[in-house]
Amino acid sequence: MTMAIAPLAGPAAADDGRCRVVVEGLSPVVDGGRFAIKRCRGDRVAVEADAYCDGHDKIVCVLRWRRDGASEWQETPMAALANNRWHGEFVADELGGYRYTVTAWIDHFLSWRAELAHRVDAADILVSLQLGAELASEAAERAEGADRASLQALSQALRAETDAERGKQLVLDPLLGELAARYPDRSLATTHEPALPLWVDRPRARCGAWYEMFPRSCLEGVEAAGHGTFASCERRLPYVAAMGFDVLYLPPIHPIGTIKRKGPNNALSAAAGDPGSPWAIGAASGGHCAVEPRLGSLDDFRHLVARARELGLEIALDIAFQCSPDHPWAREHPAWFRHRPDGSVQYAENPPKKYEDIYPIDFESTDWRALWQELKAVFEFWIGEGVAIFRVDNPHTKAFPFWEWLIGELRRAHPEVLFLAEAFTRPKLMYRLAKLGFSQSYTYFSWRNSKPELTAYFEELTRSEVREFFRPNLWPNTPDILTEYLQFGGRPGFIVRLVLAATLGANYGIYGPAFELLEATPRDPGGEEYRDSEKYQVRHWDLERPDSLRQIIARLNRIRRDHPALQQDWQLEFYDVDNEQILCYGKFTDDLADAIIVAVNLDPHHLQSGWLSLLLERFGIADPPRPYQVHDLLGDARYLWNGPRNFISLDPQHIPAHIFCLRRHVRTEHDFDYFL
Amino acid sequence: MTMAIAPLAGPAAADDGRCRVVVEGLSPVVDGGRFAIKRCRGDRVAVEADAYCDGHDKIVCVLRWRRDGASEWQETPMAALANNRWHGEFVADELGGYRYTVTAWIDHFLSWRAELAHRVDAADILVSLQLGAELASEAAERAEGADRASLQALSQALRAETDAERGKQLVLDPLLGELAARYPDRSLATTHEPALPLWVDRPRARCGAWYEMFPRSCLEGVEAAGHGTFASCERRLPYVAAMGFDVLYLPPIHPIGTIKRKGPNNALSAAAGDPGSPWAIGAASGGHCAVEPRLGSLDDFRHLVARARELGLEIALDIAFQCSPDHPWAREHPAWFRHRPDGSVQYAENPPKKYEDIYPIDFESTDWRALWQELKAVFEFWIGEGVAIFRVDNPHTKAFPFWEWLIGELRRAHPEVLFLAEAFTRPKLMYRLAKLGFSQSYTYFSWRNSKPELTAYFEELTRSEVREFFRPNLWPNTPDILTEYLQFGGRPGFIVRLVLAATLGANYGIYGPAFELLEATPRDPGGEEYRDSEKYQVRHWDLERPDSLRQIIARLNRIRRDHPALQQDWQLEFYDVDNEQILCYGKFTDDLADAIIVAVNLDPHHLQSGWLSLLLERFGIADPPRPYQVHDLLGDARYLWNGPRNFISLDPQHIPAHIFCLRRHVRTEHDFDYFL
Repeated sequence: MTMAIAPLAGPAAADDGRCRVVVEGLSPVVDGGRFAIKRCRGDRVAVEADAYCDGHDKIVCVLRWRRDGASEWQETPMAALANNRWHGEFVADELGGYRYTVTAWIDHFLSWRAELAHRVDAADILVSLQLGAELASEAAERAEGADRASLQALSQALRAETDAERGKQLVLDPLLGELAARYPDRSLATTHEPALPLWVDRPRARCGAWYEMFPRSCLEGVEAAGHGTFASCERRLPYVAAMGFDVLYLPPIHPIGTIKRKGPNNALSAAAGDPGSPWAIGAASGGHCAVEPRLGSLDDFRHLVARARELGLEIALDIAFQCSPDHPWAREHPAWFRHRPDGSVQYAENPPKKYEDIYPIDFESTDWRALWQELKAVFEFWIGEGVAIFRVDNPHTKAFPFWEWLIGELRRAHPEVLFLAEAFTRPKLMYRLAKLGFSQSYTYFSWRNSKPELTAYFEELTRSEVREFFRPNLWPNTPDILTEYLQFGGRPGFIVRLVLAATLGANYGIYGPAFELLEATPRDPGGEEYRDSEKYQVRHWDLERPDSLRQIIARLNRIRRDHPALQQDWQLEFYDVDNEQILCYGKFTDDLADAIIVAVNLDPHHLQSGWLSLLLERFGIADPPRPYQVHDLLGDARYLWNGPRNFISLDPQHIPAHIFCLRRHVRTEHDFDYFL
Repeated sequence: MTMAIAPLAGPAAADDGRCRVVVEGLSPVVDGGRFAIKRCRGDRVAVEADAYCDGHDKIVCVLRWRRDGASEWQETPMAALANNRWHGEFVADELGGYRYTVTAWIDHFLSWRAELAHRVDAADILVSLQLGAELASEAAERAEGADRASLQALSQALRAETDAERGKQLVLDPLLGELAARYPDRSLATTHEPALPLWVDRPRARCGAWYEMFPRSCLEGVEAAGHGTFASCERRLPYVAAMGFDVLYLPPIHPIGTIKRKGPNNALSAAAGDPGSPWAIGAASGGHCAVEPRLGSLDDFRHLVARARELGLEIALDIAFQCSPDHPWAREHPAWFRHRPDGSVQYAENPPKKYEDIYPIDFESTDWRALWQELKAVFEFWIGEGVAIFRVDNPHTKAFPFWEWLIGELRRAHPEVLFLAEAFTRPKLMYRLAKLGFSQSYTYFSWRNSKPELTAYFEELTRSEVREFFRPNLWPNTPDILTEYLQFGGRPGFIVRLVLAATLGANYGIYGPAFELLEATPRDPGGEEYRDSEKYQVRHWDLERPDSLRQIIARLNRIRRDHPALQQDWQLEFYDVDNEQILCYGKFTDDLADAIIVAVNLDPHHLQSGWLSLLLERFGIADPPRPYQVHDLLGDARYLWNGPRNFISLDPQHIPAHIFCLRRHVRTEHDFDYFL
C-alpha cells in the first residue's frame, strides 16, 4: 500500500511555459489537501493564498469553489494583502463536500494602465495609448452586448487620441478600467491544484450539550429493583430536556452476551439477574442491528426517538465494533476474528489482562471487504431508524483505512450524520481519526486541570491547524472516567469542571445522573473506575436530592443557548491573572457582538482572588478609558469595571466561577445629544 | 496551466484495506515534496516521520533512499522517538538528485513477543508458544540458508515446548528475536508517497568566499588610462588569492552594445571611448556566447580560468538574459521581444524611467520553446569553457517555469554547476527561485543593520523550513549597492559589515577593490549607486593604499578556512548582550568540536561595552562552573572566562569585533592524574 500525500509536478513547461503566475501556500489546508477542512452550514470560508508573477505586471486573483459533483465553479475576487498574499471568502451554504481553489492571471490591461499612470513623456504616452487601443480591442472580442460596444468605442477613442494628457485621463477613468478588467485574457491563468476539500456539517457538529445516560437505570417506582426500558427512559426525557441538553447519548442498546458475562464491578462471573456490560454486544436475540429485549422492542426505541425529538433532544447511539462470544457474527463469520492455535476465537486481551467476554474484530481478515460492508450496514440500519449522531467506541483500535472508507460512504448518502470519536489514545492517532472524517472527538480535557495545562491545550486546539479538522467535545466524566479531581474536589470541584467544559467547549457532555448527583467513589483507590459502575449493573438514582447540580446545569445550558460566543471554539483567548489558581478567558463572536469572559477558581477548596488583565481594545473599551458593565450570568450580579485590570475573588463554597457577559456601553453624559 | 502541489489519495481501500500503518509528516520536506531539499556531498540527511497503527501492535520503520534513475532502494532502520515520531539518517555521498521515503509495517512476531513478555498464566503461555511457532515458521519461509534452518528449529522448539517458563525464556532470548525480526512480512507495509526529492551539490554550494571584480579595471602601469584585459585580470589573480577568496566572480564579459550606450555615471549618451555597461549585452561581434573584444579572446579567457584554478580560485560568470539593441538576437529573433505599436522593440522601462540600451526578453513569446533552448545553450557554452558557477542577473524578472526547466536540464548533465540568484525582490519570489533550483541567493543582509533586524532575519534563514532550500550569500556591497551604513560608517563600518558577512554566512562576497579600498561616495545624496561606478567606466584602483582592508580580509578568510564552524549556516545561535549595539552569536559544528563566538559592535562610531550571556551547557562548560579560554582570532588575544556572563568592550577605532574560538579545556589541578 502507498500513502499518496503530495505529487511532484513536472516542470511547468510540460504545459505552457508562458504561464508566469505562481499560486501557492493556500490556506486553510490539512496535510497538503489530503484531508478536508471542516465547517458548518452557513459559515464563511476565508481562504488565503500567495500569488505573484515575475517582474512587475499586475495580477488578478479569484477564489473558486464548487459542491462535489457540480460541474460549474463559482468564483469571487480576492483582495491583495501585504507580501503577495491574497484573501477571499465564500459562504458554505449546503451540507456535504466542496472543493476550493485559487486562480490567478496577469492582466495586461491593468498592467498597461498602471504604467500609463506613471508616464510623463507626451510622445511615450501617445505610443502607449495605441497599445491600450489594442488591449481594449482584444477585451472587446471577449465581451458581449453593450460592454463589447463600449470597449470597441474605447479602443477607437484611444487609437484616435492625439492629446497625451487627455488620453491619459480617458484611460484612468475608473469605470473604463473596470470595464476592460471584466474581460481578462485568462488563457495563461494558473490554478492551484489540487482543489482543496472542504466538508460542511450541520451546525450541531460545532455546538451541542450532550447528556449520557443508561436507559436500563431509568427506574421509577415499582421498577426500582428491576431494569429500565425504552419506555421508562422516555419518561426521563423531560428531566434531561429541562437541564437544556441538545443530545441524549445512550450506551449500546443491543443484546448483551451471556457467555463470560461480567458481574457487578467487573466481576469475572455474573449472577443470574446481572445485566452484563452493554459493550459486550450480541446474543441469541441478535447483534448490532437488534435491541436488548429487556429494554423493549425496536418500536419502543422508535417511539423514544420521536418523543425526544419533540422535546428538542436528539438521540445519539454508541457504535462499538466488537462482539460477545454469542454474537451471531462469531458463528456466521469466523474469518472476521483471529483464532488461537487451539482453534478458539481470540478474545480481547492486554496481557496479563484478559477480557474474555469480548471478541475484537480482525481488520487484517482476508474477508475484509465483506466485513466492511456489514459494518457499514450497521450504521445504515440505525440511520434508517432516525439516528443521525453516533458516538464511536474506541475507533483507534480499528484500521484507519476502514474509517475513511466508512465515513466517506455514509456521508455521501447522509451528509447530516455526525460521528464522535471516543479515542482516548496518543495525539497522532486522535488527530488522524479526526482527519479521516470523525465530526467530533473526545479530548484530553478530562485530565487537564491546572492553568498552564488548560491554556496550552486549548491554544493547540483553537489556534493551530488542528482546529481545521478536530472538533473537541469536552467531558468532565464518562462511565469509564471518574477523574481524581472529581474524587477529591467535592461539589465545588464538579462545578469547576462543569463550567470549564461548558464554556471552553462549544461541544461538551456529562455522564449522568452520576455527574449531577456528585458520584465520586472509585472502585479502587487510585483508579478512575466508578464503584458500582453502571457498565455492569443497574443503578437507582435519587434525582431529587437537594445537592443535585441540575439547576446549575440548566442555568449553564441556558447561558450557552443565549450566547453565540459560547457556541463556537475558535474565538478564545486567555487573560493574565496574578493568581495561578484562577483561570480567565474570553470567548466572542467574529463580529464581537457577543462577548463572554469566564473566570474559574481551579482550587475547589479555598477562596482565591487576584487581579485579571483583560484585552479590551478590540471591543472599543480601552481607549479612551470608560467604565463598562460586566454581568455575571451565573450569579446574576452586575459590576461596573474600569480599564483592563480588575479584581476578582472566588469562593468555591459559594460558587467557584463567574461567567461575565461584557456590555460595552455604559451611558455617561457623553452619550446624550445635548452633550455634543 | 495547473500547479500540482498535492494530490488527493482515494480511500486506502482502493489498494488493500488491511494496511493498518500510517506514515505521515515526513521531514524535511519543501511544499509537500513539490521541491527538493538541498544538501552537499557528504552530508548526513536526517529524516523524521510519524508512523503508527491502530491498536497496540509493534511496528518497524525504515528510511529508504535512492539516486535518481537507480532501480534499487537502499534502506536503514529508523529509531522510535517520543510521540510516534521516528528518526533515521543516511549519507548523501554523490552529486545529483535523490529520493527518500519511509516504509513501515506491523511486525506480528515482535508484537507477539512483546505480549508474551507480559503473560503470567502458564496455560496462556503454552497456547501463545504455539502461535509463536507458526510465526517462526512463516519467517523461516522468508529466510534463506542458515537463518532459515535456525528459524525452523525455533519453530519446532516452540511447538514442542511443554514448560511455560522455559518457553518464555527461549522466546525472549535477544538473538532469537533479532533473527525472526530480520524476515518480516512486509506484504501489508505502508510507504509514504511521494518519495521526497533531495538535491546534492558539491560542498562549494554550502561555503565559499566570493570576490567580484571588473576585468576591465585590472589596469597596470601603462594601461592605467586604458582598458583592462583577461590577461591583466590574470595578473591580478594572486592579489585576490592572497586574500583567501574561493570564487572570483566577473560581471558579464560579452560584447557591449553600442546603440544607446550609457556614459559614465549612467549618462544617457556615451563619448567615443566610453566602454558602456557590461549588462548591455551584444553587439556586432556577438552575443551571450562571445567575449568583448577589448577584454581579449576566448583563448585568453580560457587561460584566465586555468590560471585561476591553479591559484585555488574558481571563476564565476554573470549571466544576464537581456540584450542591447545591437545584440544578434534582436535581429534574428524578433519574436523573443515585445514590440511597441510603432513597430520598434520595447526597451526596458519602469515608467517614468527608461533603459533604452536594454531590450528585455519576452517570456510570453509564442516562440518560447526555441527561446528556452537558446538560453540553455548559453549556459552550456560556458560550462563547456570550464565555468561551473553562474551568478544569474535578476532572475525574478524572467518566468519561473523557465528557471525550473533550465536548471533541471542543466543539472541533469552537469550536477556540479552552481547558480547564484541575484533577486533583490519580494520575499516570496526570492524563496521561489531558490525552490526552483538556484543553489544560492543574494539576501536582504545588505540592509539589515540593527541587532533585532539581524537576529530576526538570520533566525528565519537558519531555523525555519527556509534553510532546506535557500542558501544565503551575504554581500555588504555590490556594484549596485553602496549602503547608507557603508556611506556613513567609515573604515570601522566596512569592517563591521565584513565581519558580519563572513561569519553570519558560510557564503559571502564583496565587490572589490571598491570594498577593501573603502569606496563610499554615492552618485546622488540618499542614493545607493556608486559615484563613477565601474558599471559605466573603467576605474584605476590603488591597491597598495595603507588603509586597505586586504590584510583584515585575508585574516578573516584564513579564520573561515581553519574553522568548520564558519563553513555552515545551520548551527547559529544568538546570545543576549545588555547593549543593543553589540550583536553576539555562536556558530559550531554538529559535533561541537569547533565553536566560534562572534561579538560585533554595530555602532561604527563609539566604543560600546556590555555583559554577554552565553549558552554553554552543550559544551560541557557550565556545569560544574570552570574557567575556559576564548581566543580572539581577529586580535590574537586570549581571555580566561568563567561562567556564562562575561564583559566585553569594543572600540571601533581599534577593531569593532571579536571572533572568539572557544577552547573548552583549561587545565586545573583536577585534570592531573595525581589529583584523583
